[in-house]
Amino acid sequence: MTRLKLGMVGGGQGAFIGAVHRIASRIDDRFDLVAGALSSDAKRAAASAAELGIAPDRSYADFRDMAKAEAARADGIDAVAIVTPNHMHAAPVIAFLEAGIAVICDKPLCLTKEEADQIAAAVKRSKAPFILTHNYTGYPLIRQARQMVADGKLGKIRIIQAEYAQDWLTLPADPGNKQADWRTDPARAGGGAIGDIGTHAFNLLSFVTGLETEALLADLHSMVNGRRVDDNAHILLRMKGGAKGMLWASQVAVGKENGLQLRIYGDKGSIEWGQENPNVMTYSVFGEPKQIITRGGAGLGGGAGQWTRIPPGHPEGYLEGFATLYNDAADLIQGTGDGALLPGIKAGLDGMWFIGACIASSKKDGVWIKR
Amino acid sequence: MTRLKLGMVGGGQGAFIGAVHRIASRIDDRFDLVAGALSSDAKRAAASAAELGIAPDRSYADFRDMAKAEAARADGIDAVAIVTPNHMHAAPVIAFLEAGIAVICDKPLCLTKEEADQIAAAVKRSKAPFILTHNYTGYPLIRQARQMVADGKLGKIRIIQAEYAQDWLTLPADPGNKQADWRTDPARAGGGAIGDIGTHAFNLLSFVTGLETEALLADLHSMVNGRRVDDNAHILLRMKGGAKGMLWASQVAVGKENGLQLRIYGDKGSIEWGQENPNVMTYSVFGEPKQIITRGGAGLGGGAGQWTRIPPGHPEGYLEGFATLYNDAADLIQGTGDGALLPGIKAGLDGMWFIGACIASSKKDGVWIKR
Amino acid sequence: MTRLKLGMVGGGQGAFIGAVHRIASRIDDRFDLVAGALSSDAKRAAASAAELGIAPDRSYADFRDMAKAEAARADGIDAVAIVTPNHMHAAPVIAFLEAGIAVICDKPLCLTKEEADQIAAAVKRSKAPFILTHNYTGYPLIRQARQMVADGKLGKIRIIQAEYAQDWLTLPADPGNKQADWRTDPARAGGGAIGDIGTHAFNLLSFVTGLETEALLADLHSMVNGRRVDDNAHILLRMKGGAKGMLWASQVAVGKENGLQLRIYGDKGSIEWGQENPNVMTYSVFGEPKQIITRGGAGLGGGAGQWTRIPPGHPEGYLEGFATLYNDAADLIQGTGDGALLPGIKAGLDGMWFIGACIASSKKDGVWIKR
Amino acid sequence: MTRLKLGMVGGGQGAFIGAVHRIASRIDDRFDLVAGALSSDAKRAAASAAELGIAPDRSYADFRDMAKAEAARADGIDAVAIVTPNHMHAAPVIAFLEAGIAVICDKPLCLTKEEADQIAAAVKRSKAPFILTHNYTGYPLIRQARQMVADGKLGKIRIIQAEYAQDWLTLPADPGNKQADWRTDPARAGGGAIGDIGTHAFNLLSFVTGLETEALLADLHSMVNGRRVDDNAHILLRMKGGAKGMLWASQVAVGKENGLQLRIYGDKGSIEWGQENPNVMTYSVFGEPKQIITRGGAGLGGGAGQWTRIPPGHPEGYLEGFATLYNDAADLIQGTGDGALLPGIKAGLDGMWFIGACIASSKKDGVWIKR
Repeated sequence: MTRLKLGMVGGGQGAFIGAVHRIASRIDDRFDLVAGALSSDAKRAAASAAELGIAPDRSYADFRDMAKAEAARADGIDAVAIVTPNHMHAAPVIAFLEAGIAVICDKPLCLTKEEADQIAAAVKRSKAPFILTHNYTGYPLIRQARQMVADGKLGKIRIIQAEYAQDWLTLPADPGNKQADWRTDPARAGGGAIGDIGTHAFNLLSFVTGLETEALLADLHSMVNGRRVDDNAHILLRMKGGAKGMLWASQVAVGKENGLQLRIYGDKGSIEWGQENPNVMTYSVFGEPKQIITRGGAGLGGGAGQWTRIPPGHPEGYLEGFATLYNDAADLIQGTGDGALLPGIKAGLDGMWFIGACIASSKKDGVWIKR
Repeated sequence: MTRLKLGMVGGGQGAFIGAVHRIASRIDDRFDLVAGALSSDAKRAAASAAELGIAPDRSYADFRDMAKAEAARADGIDAVAIVTPNHMHAAPVIAFLEAGIAVICDKPLCLTKEEADQIAAAVKRSKAPFILTHNYTGYPLIRQARQMVADGKLGKIRIIQAEYAQDWLTLPADPGNKQADWRTDPARAGGGAIGDIGTHAFNLLSFVTGLETEALLADLHSMVNGRRVDDNAHILLRMKGGAKGMLWASQVAVGKENGLQLRIYGDKGSIEWGQENPNVMTYSVFGEPKQIITRGGAGLGGGAGQWTRIPPGHPEGYLEGFATLYNDAADLIQGTGDGALLPGIKAGLDGMWFIGACIASSKKDGVWIKR
Repeated sequence: MTRLKLGMVGGGQGAFIGAVHRIASRIDDRFDLVAGALSSDAKRAAASAAELGIAPDRSYADFRDMAKAEAARADGIDAVAIVTPNHMHAAPVIAFLEAGIAVICDKPLCLTKEEADQIAAAVKRSKAPFILTHNYTGYPLIRQARQMVADGKLGKIRIIQAEYAQDWLTLPADPGNKQADWRTDPARAGGGAIGDIGTHAFNLLSFVTGLETEALLADLHSMVNGRRVDDNAHILLRMKGGAKGMLWASQVAVGKENGLQLRIYGDKGSIEWGQENPNVMTYSVFGEPKQIITRGGAGLGGGAGQWTRIPPGHPEGYLEGFATLYNDAADLIQGTGDGALLPGIKAGLDGMWFIGACIASSKKDGVWIKR
Repeated sequence: MTRLKLGMVGGGQGAFIGAVHRIASRIDDRFDLVAGALSSDAKRAAASAAELGIAPDRSYADFRDMAKAEAARADGIDAVAIVTPNHMHAAPVIAFLEAGIAVICDKPLCLTKEEADQIAAAVKRSKAPFILTHNYTGYPLIRQARQMVADGKLGKIRIIQAEYAQDWLTLPADPGNKQADWRTDPARAGGGAIGDIGTHAFNLLSFVTGLETEALLADLHSMVNGRRVDDNAHILLRMKGGAKGMLWASQVAVGKENGLQLRIYGDKGSIEWGQENPNVMTYSVFGEPKQIITRGGAGLGGGAGQWTRIPPGHPEGYLEGFATLYNDAADLIQGTGDGALLPGIKAGLDGMWFIGACIASSKKDGVWIKR
């Protein structure tokens, strides 16, 4: 077992997606984060690196220096994660590809058509892999859905209903909100809802159906006064082969947290899946009862098991709950927490009493056993 | 940031819960697994250790040797995870506690009342912390629920309906099923469903309500011919202070994957939560509409945010989907996979086209833009 | 087509279940309500009869007079509905049975063992049918479930989990609440939650499983200070043939409106049904994905079609929505309402525009058509 | 209490919607069906009338004769229900309006713009009311939703997502299917999915939001080879005042039975409702937990109580279950059924045992009481 050495550009203190990338890289224990240009602010870059256990000589103020230096080291990084805002993707992506280092880049690809072409050219020139983290394609049931479509379980695809609705931009953004700030600035974000979340929905429907888009027709809106990017988008799709689609992307749909939903109807069957409860998908065959497919569960769901770490019924998230106990345990052991919520010996003795009392009560055909 | 050094007893090749403990320990990056007695079979212990990157000199054939050796090293482990079957908990737990090493032990505590008392005594004697991984207490909304009860949001608790139903033992167990094997052997498991899952439900209701049990009455069943432990349990509970409860634990409830559910009713309000969709809980106040509380979401759900790594609407499990992309990327980079399912430059260019086409179509008031 | 002539005892102004019986008797147009002893208060009886269009000479102050008079008439009633409180069931039931008139009686049967025996004897002596309105057995999917069990779809029944939880008695009952008043008086109601709703759950599980009860064990509670009947009941069941059950009945479960739920697990399959969304049932076969069975829908649900008036997907209740339009129309026609909520010609023209505009827009390949 | 006299045009043997109108007219006991021109086939008209208990002299072979004759009778009908296929709406509607008789007409209004104008003129000339049965506006929660929008609970409406998806036309229609036959014939139906169900969704969104449509853009499809009308429609909407909408209507969406769904998002709040579980609606206020509003239930749901016949938690449909018992009872009494599924004295005695056994067991602190 050899772990890959990972670098990161962006993702310094206060960043959201950088932390997500780091956790994701650790779960299967195949990467060690060893280098970073975590912020364009040199001080913040250094502080962030220290916090993350990156050696000072591998914390860089500039991603260009980092690409060169790491490429030159015998123990240089094997891959780099680019987790900067959209308008700062192109340059580091190209720099690392040119240095022969694999790139794992957050989505969307970049800001402009020109940048996109430059990145495409760099990918073509480089031997290093390029990966874009359209992370929703990593859900086991989404991969299972793709397989089902490919296997013809749905027949010929006719209709695609995709949506990605949130509500966090319902009000004019708080100027101090770092996440909202760049996402609502056309110069840094490109599109609004269409770029931030619409591209996820678009990617997902392509990934699952395997269909190429023929054309789209869009009606974009800025529902909030003064907003400079779209915050709601109504889009019609025509796919090659004749399927038709609707795509709704919104960041002003009150009550929606992260409502990514995909529904696909073929001439034989259909599937419906929603990201907020991702371990469950419904599958309908015309003329038969709807089936509930669970991640790794009975029937077709079993196929999803190959991308799964835990048994059916243990939702993904089970691991995070487990991790919270380990986190609290670390606090307790290091003296930075009192472990007040941790089950300890009392919980253990309680459980032993429970087992013994159940057996004793049942043996007497059901009598009350006192604690 | 200093990571804790972690050891493990049990959890060798083919084990389920050991892998879960290892992932959980990595998610927040606070532990490094550096030592282990991963199997009572010396060969398997060594092979498992090699696979996990544990140095050969810290792979032990016997947990007693490990406890001694690690306690003696300057860089010895800070904590050990005990992930053996139930009947092999007591001895290693006591050995490590006596060596002054923190113990993180899988549940239930052990097999017999005698063992439980010995462990309790060891915990009392030792300065090292003892943690029992009743992992469901780590779910953010469960911790939130506990807080709500403590804050009086439900008023005085009247009724507790707990259940934990599975179906994996519906048929006589396959003799080759390692998981089923020891769990249905009275000598190794203690109880059947009551020990394996009933204790989880019992622990959870205690954790959330904060109530002590006064008495229980149980009717245990072995539904499968020849089964030597209970596989279905119907239990009535009386709690101190007057609340009454029902607890159903079953491993023969066809269609149930991991149906742990907790419902608590007070004289003012109630909560209902199910493990299979753990990011959602309903909360009712008498005379008001039922509320849907989401992990880290609006209202009371916000309190759960302190045990949360990602925003509301991103189910726990989002991280695992993300991790699958990193895992595939590692395969691609190391040449052990072809990255067929990984989004790459094409997905990136598609997304850029999508954004541009949306804007172009909408600017012309809605016309079809071809790909 | 000949309609049956129906009489009613109880069900005067302000009564709940009498109105339900009357609507139910009209839906399939097989009964005409022509006689009644609607209240023990003669004045209220007469006023209620007038309101319901019962001729004055067939409105009786006493049910005994009614039984005699109706039995003597050539055009006397064919059947009588008994919708009085529980303690006033026995006498009218016996009187009408003795008069040779079919009896449709609300549940539970009566108040005491003695009354029950007297009724049973009267049923035995009489040629007239006796029907007890355990109305939940009339739900199409419940009848379908019974058929599925009888057909062996679930295999041998192992576990029955039944519950009926409400919250309307969470607080001490308002003394002016007619419904709560007699239901919490041991002299008029017999049991509390066990009689009012527990019997429904008990009846339902018997109806669906076809199993006889062998024994029960109960823990009854009065959660509200001063309440003289049980308001929460925890019951264990043993069925002939070996199945085990739990039954929870509660009228103090905050947030529960009318939560009647039945779950049955056999050694091959299981079903789960809840009354609050009665058109849907899940059906699991061990080792296969869970199926969603809909009333009259594809697959096994089709069997429910024989007790169904409308197609799948049109929930029962569709008819009531439809009836509300007829009710509003009657108001409009009779000048007792202004029809403000009724769709009229404007809605019709809007719909015609909608159809035409859709066709016109689509013919031009998608352009905006103005209203 | 005076019942209105009702006539019907169309709705003879084998018709679906005619039977629905008749049941709806009976539920609140305000109409008596006394006249009809139930079929254009004279023989079928007479046979249908006889079956429905319409006197032979009031069964007409032609709706024109019926309008004249009924208008001339002292006891002539007060209202007529027009339940013919779409292309046969206009003539009878106009005839009855001109005869001064109230018209209750099934939707959509008619086939062509010309017919619509003629009907509109007739409505204007006549003093008789005209009602179009967009029946989904009769659902209590839909009326409640309309009130909530009008009261400003959602703020200014921004987004409307409406859909009505079915799957019954997934395959080329069976030529013998009377329902499918005229609905897929452009000469008789007008539009396909847009007319049959799209108009319902369009009406519903107008009814609830109170907003006028400014423009629409449509993409209509005929997914099934040889189908002459649309069977899938993707529509964008612009409402006066700035709200934007999407409307999806489909009759080829595999797995959808009668999936009418309405979701409305304002700048303060949102509501989501689906017809297949019509007694429940979610309501979100920005920054607060989502609420589950039930028909007649706590909080805002209470407003729906005015259009409700039964308490919250008793789904609409409860009445139909109840009616099935009455229907079976009629069969038993008339000797046309054996009452095999009817609860009778045994169910009654079982219930009495249950109550008594519960009390006895509980009094002894929980012992098994045998049957």
